[in-house]
Amino acid sequence: MGGKPARTIKSSTVSKPSESIVKTPVDTKGLSVSKSKDLSEWYTQVIQKAELIDYPPIQGFMILRPNGYALWERIQTTFNAVLAEKGVHNAYFPLLIPDSFFKKEAEHAKGFAPELAYIKGTEQGQLLALRPTSETIIYDSFAKWIRSWRDLPMKLNQWCNVIRWEVKQTKPLLRTREFLWQEGHCAFATQQEARANMREMLQAYKKLIEQELAIPVLAGRKSTAEKFPGADMSMTVEALMPDGKALQMGTSHSLKQEFARSFNISFLDQQGVQQGIWPTSWGISTRLLGGLVMVHGDDKGLVIPPRMAKQQIVIVPILFDESKVQVLTQARALRDSLHPFSVVIDDREGYSPGWKFNEWEMKGVPVRVELGPKDLAKQQVVVIRRDTGVKEIVPLGNVKTYIETLLETIQHDLYAKAKHFLDSQIVTASSLKELQKGIKERKLVKVYMVDDPRVEKKLKDATDGATTRLIEEVTKEGVCVQTGEKTYTLAYWAKSY
Amino acid sequence: MGGKPARTIKSSTVSKPSESIVKTPVDTKGLSVSKSKDLSEWYTQVIQKAELIDYPPIQGFMILRPNGYALWERIQTTFNAVLAEKGVHNAYFPLLIPDSFFKKEAEHAKGFAPELAYIKGTEQGQLLALRPTSETIIYDSFAKWIRSWRDLPMKLNQWCNVIRWEVKQTKPLLRTREFLWQEGHCAFATQQEARANMREMLQAYKKLIEQELAIPVLAGRKSTAEKFPGADMSMTVEALMPDGKALQMGTSHSLKQEFARSFNISFLDQQGVQQGIWPTSWGISTRLLGGLVMVHGDDKGLVIPPRMAKQQIVIVPILFDESKVQVLTQARALRDSLHPFSVVIDDREGYSPGWKFNEWEMKGVPVRVELGPKDLAKQQVVVIRRDTGVKEIVPLGNVKTYIETLLETIQHDLYAKAKHFLDSQIVTASSLKELQKGIKERKLVKVYMVDDPRVEKKLKDATDGATTRLIEEVTKEGVCVQTGEKTYTLAYWAKSY
Repeated sequence: MGGKPARTIKSSTVSKPSESIVKTPVDTKGLSVSKSKDLSEWYTQVIQKAELIDYPPIQGFMILRPNGYALWERIQTTFNAVLAEKGVHNAYFPLLIPDSFFKKEAEHAKGFAPELAYIKGTEQGQLLALRPTSETIIYDSFAKWIRSWRDLPMKLNQWCNVIRWEVKQTKPLLRTREFLWQEGHCAFATQQEARANMREMLQAYKKLIEQELAIPVLAGRKSTAEKFPGADMSMTVEALMPDGKALQMGTSHSLKQEFARSFNISFLDQQGVQQGIWPTSWGISTRLLGGLVMVHGDDKGLVIPPRMAKQQIVIVPILFDESKVQVLTQARALRDSLHPFSVVIDDREGYSPGWKFNEWEMKGVPVRVELGPKDLAKQQVVVIRRDTGVKEIVPLGNVKTYIETLLETIQHDLYAKAKHFLDSQIVTASSLKELQKGIKERKLVKVYMVDDPRVEKKLKDATDGATTRLIEEVTKEGVCVQTGEKTYTLAYWAKSY
Repeated sequence: MGGKPARTIKSSTVSKPSESIVKTPVDTKGLSVSKSKDLSEWYTQVIQKAELIDYPPIQGFMILRPNGYALWERIQTTFNAVLAEKGVHNAYFPLLIPDSFFKKEAEHAKGFAPELAYIKGTEQGQLLALRPTSETIIYDSFAKWIRSWRDLPMKLNQWCNVIRWEVKQTKPLLRTREFLWQEGHCAFATQQEARANMREMLQAYKKLIEQELAIPVLAGRKSTAEKFPGADMSMTVEALMPDGKALQMGTSHSLKQEFARSFNISFLDQQGVQQGIWPTSWGISTRLLGGLVMVHGDDKGLVIPPRMAKQQIVIVPILFDESKVQVLTQARALRDSLHPFSVVIDDREGYSPGWKFNEWEMKGVPVRVELGPKDLAKQQVVVIRRDTGVKEIVPLGNVKTYIETLLETIQHDLYAKAKHFLDSQIVTASSLKELQKGIKERKLVKVYMVDDPRVEKKLKDATDGATTRLIEEVTKEGVCVQTGEKTYTLAYWAKSY
């Protein structure tokens, strides 16, 4: 598909609204900064101009507008099918959790205490916190529901809001005091099964993020210093943003048996012996949408991968009074023929085609189809890819097949482009100096490192607050850049969101 | 379908688990009270034994277990399709709302103040409440998003949790301090459109509740005294519970234009004149599940209407060592043939068929299929309706057609039975004395009444706290039972949940 010259389309005034689909024009003065110049400002503008989010009058919170929420619903639908297939049942536990529950497991308490928000006043002496995560309140129920080996595994999930009173600078979708997520909580009879579940769910996240969001991720375990408060082992999927910062996209944990024991969960095994359970928990959140914006967006706005798009195709009919009826009729016939793709016709009056093009580009709709009277005469349409801007003239009879392939191509290309970037940013360092240099150059730096919090702390201090994103166990021995000890663990270092 | 005598099924011990579907046996000691004897205690037992809900350690809250949440998900799926068709977009607004927002509209403030829960501490001087409903925070955004007539109508909805710190006695699903709901919020250019939307959504609720939940409802407007705080007009759908108490199943409101005006929402009309908008709001909640339990359940437990059932059919194979393989093979073939109905096979070991029957009856699965070696030999199965307990022997070749019809019949019969009860409980009273008598007899009593809060208050005091459930405007003039004035408004009085 060669880059055809852009058509000059005259602004047209049409007489009457006929089929209005979108009534609120977005603010398409366009973006005042380019993505490469100032990613942070670009991001702030795109999420608002594409109407994904807006700011409520409460610091650190966000409003998910329909365009943003639709992306989250797409993730919910896709992932609910995965959950059903894996025998995980959806449920709902209370928003409020007794503060005493957080104190039962020391690490968990320490990890979440700074971010807890509480309800005013107490109820029968209970101090109640808003859930930052629900392990504790769910374990309280597990203790009642789990009696024997027959009750295991128990696999529950909930889609809900959580509150974490962030003290760091907040940023919509990436770090907010309230966000939406799913949290899965399972109980197993053996550590082996728990570990397998942790890995299985991490793989499910990787698949979802790579295949649907078209974002390549690195999967691995968290270092001892970075693991979830209360976890025995934590795994993570990490994506790389265009500024070289890593974004944690999802985590999966195998929790300490003592965590469950502190809630008195136990079961009678097949030999009639009382045993402790092995819990797991795993979650993804609306943060994924922030990653999607940053990875795929460009200077025209949002770019939504076709599999994530609620509206995959927009048809913009070029309307003149004399041919309006014929063009609209053809546009509607085309829309109907494109089933089951989701298609909108933008026939709003009072806006020029060029203005509409800008708006749909800002919103990131993957494919635009232009259809004017001249196209009608030639029985053709112009098809424009959102990701590359490439235009192609396509005979009307071939449009469906053409677009079908094109949507797959776009999905594939977005992933490939992001994968190429990710791969190009990973560098290996064999000394502290090289690690520091890599971090300074905003790379994802791979180093041999002993997985010890004290060692990691020293490196963190030496790299201006970069963190290990994940740990890879390798078979080839190496030398720890901090201690000089021999080790089989590789750490990926980066700045992060 | 005649009432065949119950088969005597021997308890069987099978060797090994083969296809376990449900691992946690419910507590099927059975219900210790009958529904007709003590509805309240029966309800409390059923919702727990059918594993719809459980009690968390926080007063007035509830846990929606997978069986309960699945019913809510069914409502979400069905209603999301309705919303999409009506051009309503899902979104998500913050859980926390500045207290000052509630003070902007006097009636709204007065209505919700007693139930507000607050976050400890303030943020930049803001006192923050947990949402009891989201008109205020959404109107704050409407003021930003609505500029001209082109932006109207604006139709948003959110599925979320809400917190109302009830002081009355709580009861799971019916009255809890946290519940799940959907709240739709729209803005229109004219009062006429807003009123039409209010009525349209009420009808959508009526259809959902009658056709899916098989619960007949009365639809009408709320009296002036009972309308939503801040509404210009409120409409309601009301169902009648077996104890003669009404249950409000959903409400739809046309709000005062001043409510929107207090948030500075206005738009430029087509003539360029600044106008106020007309808002509506409407909602249904997890309370619907409580109604479903009470209306359809019986002394064996829950009865789920087929359209609401996640599991519509359970096959219980009668397993003996010598014929186990053949029976299970046939059971699986039968399950596959019953697609797209949702079927589970209960082949758990260590439980007798009779024990399993009790459990599935407690859970309310609409149809049970029994299949043993003798049935296999005769190429037949036994099909049992959950609602009536009627058994029928059906040739294997006819099972799908038979069950298809049966599920429709059950859905229809459940509605018809409930409708018959509702109709039989409505009485007309033409004096205060008759009204008092009707209320004492736990009827839904229809009386002529002037729609005036002072009049209503007197009647409320005279009827031991009964309330008007809805108001019907009629063409036939009558005499108010309180004032003796002539009036065209009929009020339906009842005790309520």
